[in-house]
Parts: sequence; C-alpha cells; structure tokens
Amino acid sequence: LGFREGFVEELVTLPKIATDLPEAGELTEERRRGAAALGFGLEMLQSSFLVEDDIMDKSETRRNKPCWYRVDGVGMMAVNDASMLECIIYDLLKNHCYASRNFLKIWELFQETRLKTIAGQCLDGISELERGSRILDQCTMDRYRKIIVYKTAYYSFHCPMISGMLLAGEDDSELIAAVGKVLLRIGEYFQTQDDYLDCYGDVSVTGKVGTDIQDGKCTWLLVKALEIADQAQKQILEENYGQKSTECVGKVKQVYEELNIQDAFKSYEERTLNELRNSICSFDAGETVSMLLRSILNLIKRRDC
Amino acid sequence: LGFREGFVEELVTLPKIATDLPEAGELTEERRRGAAALGFGLEMLQSSFLVEDDIMDKSETRRNKPCWYRVDGVGMMAVNDASMLECIIYDLLKNHCYASRNFLKIWELFQETRLKTIAGQCLDGISELERGSRILDQCTMDRYRKIIVYKTAYYSFHCPMISGMLLAGEDDSELIAAVGKVLLRIGEYFQTQDDYLDCYGDVSVTGKVGTDIQDGKCTWLLVKALEIADQAQKQILEENYGQKSTECVGKVKQVYEELNIQDAFKSYEERTLNELRNSICSFDAGETVSMLLRSILNLIKRRDC
Ligand SMILES: [Mg+2]
Ligand SMILES: [Mg+2]
Ligand SMILES: [Mg+2]
Ligand SMILES: [Mg+2]
Ligand SMILES: [Mg+2]
Ligand SMILES: [Mg+2]
Repeated sequence: LGFREGFVEELVTLPKIATDLPEAGELTEERRRGAAALGFGLEMLQSSFLVEDDIMDKSETRRNKPCWYRVDGVGMMAVNDASMLECIIYDLLKNHCYASRNFLKIWELFQETRLKTIAGQCLDGISELERGSRILDQCTMDRYRKIIVYKTAYYSFHCPMISGMLLAGEDDSELIAAVGKVLLRIGEYFQTQDDYLDCYGDVSVTGKVGTDIQDGKCTWLLVKALEIADQAQKQILEENYGQKSTECVGKVKQVYEELNIQDAFKSYEERTLNELRNSICSFDAGETVSMLLRSILNLIKRRDC
Repeated sequence: LGFREGFVEELVTLPKIATDLPEAGELTEERRRGAAALGFGLEMLQSSFLVEDDIMDKSETRRNKPCWYRVDGVGMMAVNDASMLECIIYDLLKNHCYASRNFLKIWELFQETRLKTIAGQCLDGISELERGSRILDQCTMDRYRKIIVYKTAYYSFHCPMISGMLLAGEDDSELIAAVGKVLLRIGEYFQTQDDYLDCYGDVSVTGKVGTDIQDGKCTWLLVKALEIADQAQKQILEENYGQKSTECVGKVKQVYEELNIQDAFKSYEERTLNELRNSICSFDAGETVSMLLRSILNLIKRRDC
C-alpha cells in the first residue's frame, strides 16, 4: 500500500492487455467493456484500501494532497466512503462482466483479493503493536514476506492479471495457479524495491524523502540487517530504529553501511530477477502469458522511482 | 443502527423461521445449516456496520462496553476489522448456501443491503453537516423516512426475511417485492418507536437515558414538531436543539409538550399498525408469509423498550 500513481495506472491496464490472450478470441465491444470494468474495479478496490490505510496510519498526505479523511467536511465519514467504493465494485462487474462464463470466478477472485489484503493489513497492524514492546524481534524475513505478499502483491499484481485471464475465458486452473505464484513473487520484489528506494533512492527522481527508518517500518533492509548483524549492531538498531531524530536515523544508516546492505540488496535483486525470468520461460502455456509476465517484470525491474 | 441486543437476536432467527415456508420442502440438515449461515451473515454484517458507525459517531460505548475502536490496542485498526467481518460473509454463504439455486440472488441481496445501508449512513452524515449551517431546514418527513429506511430497515428487516424466503426456494419476484415493501414499512415504524422511546421511554425499562435532543439527531419527534410548530416555536427549536445544557433540552421538550407530540406519535402509531395489518392480510400468497410478517409486527408493536 503506497504506490506511485504512474505504476498503478499501468498495472491497471493489465486486465485490458490480458484480453489479448488467444483464448479471448475476437476483441468484441463487450469484452472491451468487461476489461475496462475490471480496471475500474481494481482502481476502486485500491482507493478503498488507501482511504482506510491512511486513517489507520494517521497519514497526512497521499499523492501530494491531504488524505481523504483529512479533507474538510469528510473526517471519519471517510470510513463509509471507503466501504461505498468497495461495495459498488460488485455492481460494476455485474453490469459489464456478467456475460463471461467466468463471472463468478472473477467475483470470487476480487473477494479473495480483498480478504488477503485485509489479512495483510491485520498482520501489519499486529507487528506494529508488538514492536511497541520488544521492538525488532518480530522482523524476520518470513514474516516480512508474508506481510508484503498479503497486503500488496495480491491486489497489485495477482488480481489484475488473473482477472484478465479469467475474463479472456482461461479455464486451466493449473496454469492460473502457476501464473499466480509468479505474480506474487513479482509483487514481493516490487515491495522490496520500494523499501530500498525509500532509503537509497535519488530524491530528485523518486520525488519523496523516505521516512521508513523514522517510522519504524519493517522493511527488507531492516530484516536483512538483523539477519547478519552482530550483537553490538543489533543493539544499535534496537535503540535507534523508529526514532525521529536525524542522529538516530544516521546511526541506523551507519549500521546498514557496515553491513553492506546496499550490495546485499543488489545481489538479492539479481538473483530474484534470474529466478523470475526462469520461471517465466518455463511456461509452455502459450507465448502470450509469458509475454505479459515479461512485460510486467520489465516495467518494474531495477526501477529507480 | 442502534439496536438493543435482544431484538437483534430475535430478528436474526428470521431466516431460520423462513425456512418453514411451504416452498422449502423438508427441513434437511443442509437447509438448516444454510439458514444458520444467513443468521451468522446478518450478525456479521450488522457488527461491521456498528463498528464503523461508532467510529463515525465518535461513540463511547456500545451495549454497555467500550466501542471496539476504543479498546486498548485496537484503535483505528477497527476499520480493518470491520472490513474483515464483512468480507468473510461471502465465504460463509458460499460454504453453506451454495447448493441453493438462489445462491446468487441471496448474495446479491446481501450486496444490495450493504449498499443501501452505506447510502443511508452517507445521507445521515450529510444531514449532520448541513445542520452545521442552517440547522433544522433539512429535517423534513420525506428526508427522515429516506434516511431511516436506508440505514436501518434494509438490513434489520428486509434482508433477514427476504434472504430466508430465497433460501426456502421462493422464486415469485412479485411476492418478494411486495413482502419487501411491507418489511421496509415495519422497519420504518421500528425506528420511529426508537425515537419516541429515546425521549419518552421509561428509563427503568429501556435501560438507557436518551440523548437524541442533545445530539441534534433528526428524529420523528423533531420532524413532526417542525411540521406543526408556529414561527415562535420553530425559533425555540432552532436555538435549543442539539445543545448539551439541561436548560436547552427542557425548552425543546416544552415545545414538544405544547404541540402534543406524544399524542401525535400515538395516533401515527395506531394508523401505521392498521395499515400494516391490512397490507399483511391482503397477501393471498400462502398463510406462512402473512404469519411471519404478523409475528415480526407482534414482536415490536407498542414496545416499551
Ligand atoms: Mg500507509
Ligand atoms: Mg498501513
Ligand atoms: Mg515504502
Ligand atoms: Mg451511532
Ligand atoms: Mg451514525
Ligand atoms: Mg435511537
């Protein structure tokens, strides 16, 4: 939860792209509408999540504007607005995708996506609570992965492409499961990049100053650092992570430096890209699926903002 | 939104009762489970609404306990919890009502019910905003009716019985529409009682001291008073309604007294009960439907808490 605008818009076009699948047959007006409805539905789902997330995180701004709940005359009615955004997705899909023989599967995918994201937000909330007591103990790679896959990868990567495949008439549930796995791993990679850029991105390119260290966020960098740090370094992280002062942030970054976290990320990134490319190549299920996955990967690989 | 516990539990048994409809045929284990799932689903839908409503209304307590968002360690994560409660309804219904040929209709009824309730909350929120500027202008009987039907009657009366009928296999859409209309009018009557009891109920019976006048709520009593008040009385209402002080509340009650609002309510109540009884009798669609509607009406008519 925390996308740049551009990315989202490109990702949302996925269902539209996915109607190019050979199974889809002719691109009729009906299917074009169906694909557009999926895109709108995903936007509304995301908007609903973001409105709620900002309330829960007590955020001030979103995309350089005040968060919705902070707008004059909105306040906590934003809770109801978020529900409304989400609730009308069903009508939208019903009005434009009902003719698809996979309509119910598409709807169930949206339901499942919503449930996973909610579960991810819940896990994330629990981590924050626990960090209150014994701060960094919970930040293991396993837990980190679970949180980002649930709270980001399902709705941002899995649902867009799989819903498109379903609309295109894809019925091979094994293929769908296999593609789904790759999408979740792409989503995971996307979030680790987000964490990396928060700390090491070029502000003139990313357009925002990172605050993950100050905010005590459970990030890839922190989790990796905790994995390889010695007792003294762990102690420093424990004492300075999640503190607002520039001095504390500096100390955390100093530990990252000592541990060569940047290099660790770069080599994790190369390994991940290789693995992903191999998985994508191994699909013998028609060129289009591989091509789509490759284009998603190309969209985000080694991105600098 | 603001039921006493007992009522809700009785109303939630409605889908169970409704499986007694002749169309249902034998009461199989499967249908018993389906009916229980409807009951649970309604409870979860309501809980989700109440958690959100308490956040939006900044309420302190619910059923004599702190509101969920005020519980230690919960806070605004309650927003996510409310979504989760609602989100799992689909799985619940899918697991237990999927065999019904009306499964999709049942799900769509839940969706529609949710959307109506959200719309009702929205209307309600807008009234509160507007009241900020030119306080009592918006409190017309038309608007009042719309708000209470949307925010309360659909989920509390309409959905429970109609979902039960659908599960029982009822397919007559005209009958469903006609029964639905009566249920909405029963729900409307229920809320007017709630408003009456807030002001004139016996605290030793209702168990709570009303605060609608202090809170500036748009109630049946206020709307009726505004309909028949003269300029001077309107002025008093305008100046004193929605104020916390005992003196202001006293002045409002004084105007109610002058206008014989209690009598107006009693005669509205008798008229409504007659109309409802007549509509219920006019169903020639089998004894069971009329019997169920009658039993709902008997459950709430002239209630004192
Ligand atoms: Mg956030
Ligand atoms: Mg968050
Ligand atoms: Mg970030
Ligand atoms: Mg309330
Ligand atoms: Mg309310
Ligand atoms: Mg009340």
